[in-house]
Amino acid sequence: MATIAFIGLGNMGLPMAKNLLKGGHRVIGVDLAPANLAAAAEAGIETGPAAGPAASLADVIVTMLPAGPHVRAVYGNAGGVIESAKPGTLFIDSSTVDVDSARAVAAQAEKAGHLMLDAPVSGGTGGAAAGTLTFMVGGSDAAFDKAKPYLELMGKTIVHAGGPGTGQAAKICNNMVLGISMIAVSEAFALADKLGLDRQKLFDISSKSSGQCWSLTSYCPVPGPVPTSPANREYQPGFAVDMMLKDLKLAQQAAASAGASTPLGAQAAALYQLFSAAGHGGLDFSAIVKMLQGK
Amino acid sequence: MATIAFIGLGNMGLPMAKNLLKGGHRVIGVDLAPANLAAAAEAGIETGPAAGPAASLADVIVTMLPAGPHVRAVYGNAGGVIESAKPGTLFIDSSTVDVDSARAVAAQAEKAGHLMLDAPVSGGTGGAAAGTLTFMVGGSDAAFDKAKPYLELMGKTIVHAGGPGTGQAAKICNNMVLGISMIAVSEAFALADKLGLDRQKLFDISSKSSGQCWSLTSYCPVPGPVPTSPANREYQPGFAVDMMLKDLKLAQQAAASAGASTPLGAQAAALYQLFSAAGHGGLDFSAIVKMLQGK
Amino acid sequence: MATIAFIGLGNMGLPMAKNLLKGGHRVIGVDLAPANLAAAAEAGIETGPAAGPAASLADVIVTMLPAGPHVRAVYGNAGGVIESAKPGTLFIDSSTVDVDSARAVAAQAEKAGHLMLDAPVSGGTGGAAAGTLTFMVGGSDAAFDKAKPYLELMGKTIVHAGGPGTGQAAKICNNMVLGISMIAVSEAFALADKLGLDRQKLFDISSKSSGQCWSLTSYCPVPGPVPTSPANREYQPGFAVDMMLKDLKLAQQAAASAGASTPLGAQAAALYQLFSAAGHGGLDFSAIVKMLQGK
Amino acid sequence: MATIAFIGLGNMGLPMAKNLLKGGHRVIGVDLAPANLAAAAEAGIETGPAAGPAASLADVIVTMLPAGPHVRAVYGNAGGVIESAKPGTLFIDSSTVDVDSARAVAAQAEKAGHLMLDAPVSGGTGGAAAGTLTFMVGGSDAAFDKAKPYLELMGKTIVHAGGPGTGQAAKICNNMVLGISMIAVSEAFALADKLGLDRQKLFDISSKSSGQCWSLTSYCPVPGPVPTSPANREYQPGFAVDMMLKDLKLAQQAAASAGASTPLGAQAAALYQLFSAAGHGGLDFSAIVKMLQGK
Repeated sequence: MATIAFIGLGNMGLPMAKNLLKGGHRVIGVDLAPANLAAAAEAGIETGPAAGPAASLADVIVTMLPAGPHVRAVYGNAGGVIESAKPGTLFIDSSTVDVDSARAVAAQAEKAGHLMLDAPVSGGTGGAAAGTLTFMVGGSDAAFDKAKPYLELMGKTIVHAGGPGTGQAAKICNNMVLGISMIAVSEAFALADKLGLDRQKLFDISSKSSGQCWSLTSYCPVPGPVPTSPANREYQPGFAVDMMLKDLKLAQQAAASAGASTPLGAQAAALYQLFSAAGHGGLDFSAIVKMLQGK
Repeated sequence: MATIAFIGLGNMGLPMAKNLLKGGHRVIGVDLAPANLAAAAEAGIETGPAAGPAASLADVIVTMLPAGPHVRAVYGNAGGVIESAKPGTLFIDSSTVDVDSARAVAAQAEKAGHLMLDAPVSGGTGGAAAGTLTFMVGGSDAAFDKAKPYLELMGKTIVHAGGPGTGQAAKICNNMVLGISMIAVSEAFALADKLGLDRQKLFDISSKSSGQCWSLTSYCPVPGPVPTSPANREYQPGFAVDMMLKDLKLAQQAAASAGASTPLGAQAAALYQLFSAAGHGGLDFSAIVKMLQGK
Repeated sequence: MATIAFIGLGNMGLPMAKNLLKGGHRVIGVDLAPANLAAAAEAGIETGPAAGPAASLADVIVTMLPAGPHVRAVYGNAGGVIESAKPGTLFIDSSTVDVDSARAVAAQAEKAGHLMLDAPVSGGTGGAAAGTLTFMVGGSDAAFDKAKPYLELMGKTIVHAGGPGTGQAAKICNNMVLGISMIAVSEAFALADKLGLDRQKLFDISSKSSGQCWSLTSYCPVPGPVPTSPANREYQPGFAVDMMLKDLKLAQQAAASAGASTPLGAQAAALYQLFSAAGHGGLDFSAIVKMLQGK
Repeated sequence: MATIAFIGLGNMGLPMAKNLLKGGHRVIGVDLAPANLAAAAEAGIETGPAAGPAASLADVIVTMLPAGPHVRAVYGNAGGVIESAKPGTLFIDSSTVDVDSARAVAAQAEKAGHLMLDAPVSGGTGGAAAGTLTFMVGGSDAAFDKAKPYLELMGKTIVHAGGPGTGQAAKICNNMVLGISMIAVSEAFALADKLGLDRQKLFDISSKSSGQCWSLTSYCPVPGPVPTSPANREYQPGFAVDMMLKDLKLAQQAAASAGASTPLGAQAAALYQLFSAAGHGGLDFSAIVKMLQGK
């Protein structure tokens, strides 16, 4: 049994913390929002006053925070978890943040004698509750091996992508392809409509042909062909436009910082931004088809 | 046994005509290029002097021509096949042309009492030789039923997409998704390189995740992960940049004509055009990854 | 005094024909719409039954038609103006059409012994009425010299752009820059708003700096800085979204046909198409700023 | 006579510092690079060991640094200029940095009782040497009034854009329009070439028409029409591709942070990045025309 400090008990963090508790560990939850702390307490999770003190008691620290600046603050500030933790503590940051922040914090943690992993997830709140998340993990072999048993309590697929920051890199590269291909499929359906080509026919043809992609065959943006896709429930997410937009912006930030040219990634970000600005940020990202159809 | 006029005996047309001959039919080949006619003769195909006279002898006419204007001329001109053929002749146009041309010619043929299908193919010269092409077919049920036995001599997958022009529509919609997703995957690999994320790792993760697409898992644009992809043979096609560009331009032409907005399709066309203009039109289209990598 | 057949008496054509009449010429007007013919008759213009017969009486033929196919039909069909006109007739096509159509018709006309110019205009219905249009003219020096006196009755600025088709080329190249720069300026204002930078300040700075362009300083897309711009009258055109879209599509068609890569031109066309599809095609094209502002 | 600490004595900073010295002030120069310090000393500028100590002696502090992180460090770190300066010191940051950094540092400075301006420049090294820079200035009226006499020693046009950060905002909004319009003009010339429209003709027409923009009429990307433009000296900058790319990335960063959609700005950044990655980052940014021409 390990003592785990879990920092960030929101929609994703709380069910993840519960799964660690269910796995037999002592879990100390920390969050700035009283309501989140109350929900954690109700779930039987011990709650702590602040990240630093909780970290000083922990063998393992898991963080699930909104963005890079929060991660930099919780880890790197005076009184933060890097400073407060016992040497040799294992840090697992499951937030989705920019690669530069992930690497900066990891370097700081390693310098202080800790083990650190970036381990962003996919699978949403459903996967968090069910313990079936996918973790894309960046960091040393030693850290990965030590973290694996804990990650397996929260997820089903645990992939070691490489050194520090590569977990974040893998997530944004994958989601950039996803965000683009969803627009590609949506453009194809919008064009097919105008040309009098039946949607189901296009689906039948492309799903077995060179246009096949997950956006088409598992998450089809028009109602009908894939009964489980959000298109059949009026685009309730699923994975919201604003979440996709966040990831595409992180990809653009990484591309700008690293000097990579990603013209379609940039355009996809601009299009989801347009759609969000028109008031649809809370819909599933596959609803972008409606903008392309002029609806 | 039917008499089939086959017009257009180039890289694609000749092996298709051979497969019809092998199926036991009388095939009369027509082409403007003496070398193509000679090659047809060598393959045992009877050759005719011109499209009109050959059509007047035929039960079925198959055309495999470069672009819309050729199809409009061969079919619609005075002395063309529509005028020359016996009433009730079956026309199969396997050229890849713009939807408007396909529909104009089909309307003209039907008005003259013929049956007509647009039936563009995918599968390349390899598929043409092996008789394993995919046909995307637009036209009436009656025409489709009558054509099916002939198409099955030349292809393996025969899909009826709907009324006239929908074969062309299906092909360009599918290939637009393909052209975009190939750039998406290429951008992801280019970004991964810059971020220090190993290509094989990105492949392993995305091929089982929401970024999965045919461009990645069957035709990966970087050498290594998919041994059969053109990336492993220095981007020898396969499906050349200029062929992809042709299809993307047809998609843009259809979108403009029909009033559909396809921003990523438009951008993909512009990017392949840039790559072609830099002298790489003959490479496989997956070589676009090199432009994005700055090579 | 010359006899001029004027074919196409719509919003643009009728006031142009009136100015020719006012210049002392005999004008025979032709149009398929009875209402347009009646309006012409009311203005004192002699009306003719059809293009061919009118052409046979004329020294000069001016056409003002919606698009390439109309021009091809009126000029090239059996009984069309090329066939009907006396040898040596001067043709002036002021329609805005694709470059390929302009060149095809010009070649046909020259082959038949006529002089032909493509002479698209800018300046809108206001300029047509006032006789202050700009003509961008493509064709031979001989044709240009002969046409100049007639063009000067209808316009103020008459530019000889080069050989056949270059009038159309000049118009679409110019309007592509215009369409793009209007979006550029709109993006800048949208970004400035979000960053708390006052619009008038941005205008003051950029209008005297390297961001200066006609879209900003003569036709500013936000209300205020340029009192005469359509932004100050709720985006009543001016130059409608759908007219800009038509020209951008012609530019894309020309680029596709000629093998030019115009990535921002392609993107601009896609964005105006999105805006038109959302129901705003009748607004002035500067209203695109509203889409970018999320309104 | 004031005592001015000038931090950052590179290609831009040194000539600016010289102009302050020439204006009769005591200037203490600071730079991390010994060569830059030596050059400053040779120019008669007193040199200091570090930013903090120099700041403690100064009435005015001017900084000219590469990017946001440098500015945050020099200003905000322990021992930085905010901490070291006497209360009421005037800070002028002439670096081009992201809006968020500009605002964060300004808030910190004001909290410590100082006056602070963001005052990025345009005009390049030539303008810096000649004292003819344009300053776009964000900050309070009090700070602006106090700074004006110093700015006038270094520049010719001094514009007060608004509150903190608006100097940076104005610069990136303007340069985004510039970067886009240069590509627009380049696409138009590339298309004109393919269509057989003479470049000078296109210039003559568009420079007096609705396509007019500074990129065309003052900085024409093809040789000929504007003799002073870099196109006539093989694209020696001027304003390098990599400098334009830096500004476009800052605009994208600001747009992402503020939630603005700038599709053409995003595309322009991607295109300059492609051109830079192909090895042309040191050319003048108008050389992008070569990429579009396929050269």
